[in-house]
Amino acid sequence: MRHYYSYSEYLSDCKRLTVQIDDKFDAIVAIARGGITLAHMLGEYYDIREVYAINTIGYNDTEKLDHVEVFNIPNLKQAKNILVVDDIVDSGDTMKLVLQLLSERYPECSFRSAALFYKKTAAIKPDWHVRHAEEWIDFFWSIDMVPE
Amino acid sequence: MRHYYSYSEYLSDCKRLTVQIDDKFDAIVAIARGGITLAHMLGEYYDIREVYAINTIGYNDTEKLDHVEVFNIPNLKQAKNILVVDDIVDSGDTMKLVLQLLSERYPECSFRSAALFYKKTAAIKPDWHVRHAEEWIDFFWSIDMVPE
Repeated sequence: MRHYYSYSEYLSDCKRLTVQIDDKFDAIVAIARGGITLAHMLGEYYDIREVYAINTIGYNDTEKLDHVEVFNIPNLKQAKNILVVDDIVDSGDTMKLVLQLLSERYPECSFRSAALFYKKTAAIKPDWHVRHAEEWIDFFWSIDMVPE
Repeated sequence: MRHYYSYSEYLSDCKRLTVQIDDKFDAIVAIARGGITLAHMLGEYYDIREVYAINTIGYNDTEKLDHVEVFNIPNLKQAKNILVVDDIVDSGDTMKLVLQLLSERYPECSFRSAALFYKKTAAIKPDWHVRHAEEWIDFFWSIDMVPE
């Protein structure tokens, strides 16, 4: 089962997300690549100029434990309340690690998280999410450029 | 005169852009915020995991000279050929300064640039662009979330 997640669905979910978000932020950090488009739209909506990307690589080791590496941690010295966003919190490993690393690096900052999709089995639940992920999601940004 | 730039127009322009781009890249740098959504889509299309953001703030000084400040320069040590993208090259000051700073910081890397819109009067012409900017552009990522 695959779910094609169109731009219009995404737009309506972004609106639902902003209805839920009851906090103010001065910076948004996108977990790249999945969270980038969402971070851009929320940055425009909230008029937050500080939109950053943080990069992660997931390694599927032969052992059971997956390994996630985080790099390009943005400079958040000017920020206080930061929203970390991703398209989907699936295993939750990436979001968990990113929040952990950012909190360690910037102990004086407050970090909250949002995602479009969240899987109940994830290691961490984002503060805000719109949908439960129950099947494979083909995001429009991954699919729409592919020739039919 | 304002031009509403919809997602479907954007998608068709992204396709036109990739038809033009005749080079291979191992990293994409988005000029935030405007270039973020484009960088995400191109990253997906070319399957480039290294999608970064670079942040700029433009100050409109009272003097004629506008001042652009660039920060959060990504770590590009692993990359060699880098594509720098923005939504629009208008005055060209931002793209020019970003390319200059990146080239100084990473003299061993090659940088090329792409934008959806380009204004003929700009201080720099991107290597690839799709349209000439002749009026104010309301990008869908800035407009679609605004209640009607």
